[in-house]
Amino acid sequence: MKCYLTVLVLLVSLGTALCLAQTDQPTIKEDFKPSTLNQPGQEYPQVNSQGYARFRITAPEAKSVNVSLGGRGGTPLEKTEDGVWMGTTARPEDEGFHYYHLTVDGGTFNDPGTLNFYGSTRWESGIEIPAHDRDFYALKDVPHGRVQQILFPSKSTNTSRRAFVYTPPDYDKDQNRRYPVLYLQHGWGEDETAWSNQGHANLIMDNLIAEGRSQPFLIVMTYGMTNNVRIGGMGNFSIDPFETVLIKELIPYVDANFRTLSDQPHRAMAGLSMGGMETKTITLKNLNIFSHIGLLSGGSISLDDVNNTPGFREKVKLVFVSYGSRELGGNRGGVFGGDPKAEADALKQAGINSVFYVSPDTAHEFLSWRRSLREIAPLLFRE
Amino acid sequence: MKCYLTVLVLLVSLGTALCLAQTDQPTIKEDFKPSTLNQPGQEYPQVNSQGYARFRITAPEAKSVNVSLGGRGGTPLEKTEDGVWMGTTARPEDEGFHYYHLTVDGGTFNDPGTLNFYGSTRWESGIEIPAHDRDFYALKDVPHGRVQQILFPSKSTNTSRRAFVYTPPDYDKDQNRRYPVLYLQHGWGEDETAWSNQGHANLIMDNLIAEGRSQPFLIVMTYGMTNNVRIGGMGNFSIDPFETVLIKELIPYVDANFRTLSDQPHRAMAGLSMGGMETKTITLKNLNIFSHIGLLSGGSISLDDVNNTPGFREKVKLVFVSYGSRELGGNRGGVFGGDPKAEADALKQAGINSVFYVSPDTAHEFLSWRRSLREIAPLLFRE
Repeated sequence: MKCYLTVLVLLVSLGTALCLAQTDQPTIKEDFKPSTLNQPGQEYPQVNSQGYARFRITAPEAKSVNVSLGGRGGTPLEKTEDGVWMGTTARPEDEGFHYYHLTVDGGTFNDPGTLNFYGSTRWESGIEIPAHDRDFYALKDVPHGRVQQILFPSKSTNTSRRAFVYTPPDYDKDQNRRYPVLYLQHGWGEDETAWSNQGHANLIMDNLIAEGRSQPFLIVMTYGMTNNVRIGGMGNFSIDPFETVLIKELIPYVDANFRTLSDQPHRAMAGLSMGGMETKTITLKNLNIFSHIGLLSGGSISLDDVNNTPGFREKVKLVFVSYGSRELGGNRGGVFGGDPKAEADALKQAGINSVFYVSPDTAHEFLSWRRSLREIAPLLFRE
Repeated sequence: MKCYLTVLVLLVSLGTALCLAQTDQPTIKEDFKPSTLNQPGQEYPQVNSQGYARFRITAPEAKSVNVSLGGRGGTPLEKTEDGVWMGTTARPEDEGFHYYHLTVDGGTFNDPGTLNFYGSTRWESGIEIPAHDRDFYALKDVPHGRVQQILFPSKSTNTSRRAFVYTPPDYDKDQNRRYPVLYLQHGWGEDETAWSNQGHANLIMDNLIAEGRSQPFLIVMTYGMTNNVRIGGMGNFSIDPFETVLIKELIPYVDANFRTLSDQPHRAMAGLSMGGMETKTITLKNLNIFSHIGLLSGGSISLDDVNNTPGFREKVKLVFVSYGSRELGGNRGGVFGGDPKAEADALKQAGINSVFYVSPDTAHEFLSWRRSLREIAPLLFRE
């Protein structure tokens, strides 16, 4: 009981401190600029150099407008004289991309100022807190690859399914050259648009290739929760329908329609969160198909996994595991499975090419995964 | 004065008739189904077999919720017992695609049930009233081309600019084959995503090619209001910046990076609305570059235009002009310039390959333009 009381006192103290900080706001710099993810011409939301976000919503007759960003409870906006609602997060947000939405009079809506991104099984508002290292995913004056939407036939699901294929800058220059392929999966509640839209996978690769830090390869991104889980919870999820689409339909289609190197040494799979768990399950069952494995905030591979998977040591050329630093603190609430660092070290000591990466000061969010792609890409398909 | 009075009486009579129809609603069939443009798993908005649209918005504390669709004043929703707002349009909507938005307590928001489409210089909600001829833009079990996002360097605007390129199904099968190119423009307030997203240009071409009705060609779609007009009105629009990007930067990039037939006989330009006006201006100035011209709800070409443009008769192989039938009625309020049918006939009589198409029962909306693409595609690049 005493323990609970202490916690309560601590929480109240913290609450007071935060309230004071919010009331005084002595530290908030008035250098707010429109978020880079705003719709054309939209001035709000804005972000300042410290990572505070400021919102402005027009809804003259509304009773309440709340923004889901800004910690538990979000950021309540206050009505100004002209019927416009405004508010600033009580704390700086982590660098990078964040999903959010509005609650207007009890209804869930998107911020009309921003572009939308598919997450949480719906198109949500997005905001970008400029990261100090954002240069690596910036649109630069370098040769650009393409992001191609393909519609591939899927007998197992009786439809044409969509995927996006990144082809590197020189893909169409030399018609005789063939390329390795990375199959790259989104997370739960996201879809095949995530890695290009909020992930900037194409720009990350364009920049790495321009700097000579990665060899060029294709990236294929498709929807990974094949049995229609995006419309509901995780309860009915099964890996089998997606594994069938990926192994029996998508990979053969890509190999038939793009100039790929279609052997196991030149095929990788990686994914974030749910997509990492899918990657682990599918690659360990199909080591004749994949040689490089990447799990981004989505579990890790233990020595037990290795020992229980015949051929692992011979066939797997890379195990890459990453997390955002905020996923690893304290009780590691964000980690799937065992201690990922310890497991990565154990693999390394067992002679497996195991790489563990931690994205500084980020959580279970896209800046962790943008950085993870930057880290894994140069490690793939090294001869 | 008498005339005005008659009109007034007529309007009042019509108003009464509509009100009665709305109140009684004897004819609304209860066979509503979710719109095909809903977000995954969303049940509303719905559409019935007559073209009525029904909306359902959760906003328990709101004072008013209005849908912009449904004629002047839109469709006011009514609050049901459980805090949910519902309403049905007072009349059937035209077949095809419509933009709309919500007004919730005086604020403009999108319907959280639908996908968003860029129009009116913002991402808007979209709804699809199933057209009786929707088969021609349906996703079918035929070979599919790709929609490729390219980022091309633009010195004149000092950035990399985005375009989408449709490549036909067999583009990568025969590496020696080269293809003609159609440059296809969106309308005012839209952008380079419109023709693929709400226009289904890729599916229309896939289906035409599968039926042997059109020869395969590339379609290139980029943003046409280059000097940043999308953030405001038309006041500061100038064709020059876009013409520079198109002629000096995009076309050379496409010809260098895709297997195109890069001569004048194999290059067409078409556009809808504002994009039609751009097409007319740019093609008439650049007849050494374009041989086929398409104006979709975006003006027409007169015999005066022909006579004032040296070389027109020799260089232009097709003038295609189209409108939705609802744009042509009465005072032709939706038509840009002179009588398009008369002008098309005059060109034909003068020996020019002039084709005039009217989309039945559609207005200045995307079903007119989907059909127009279906009509013009088979006429392009006939040897």
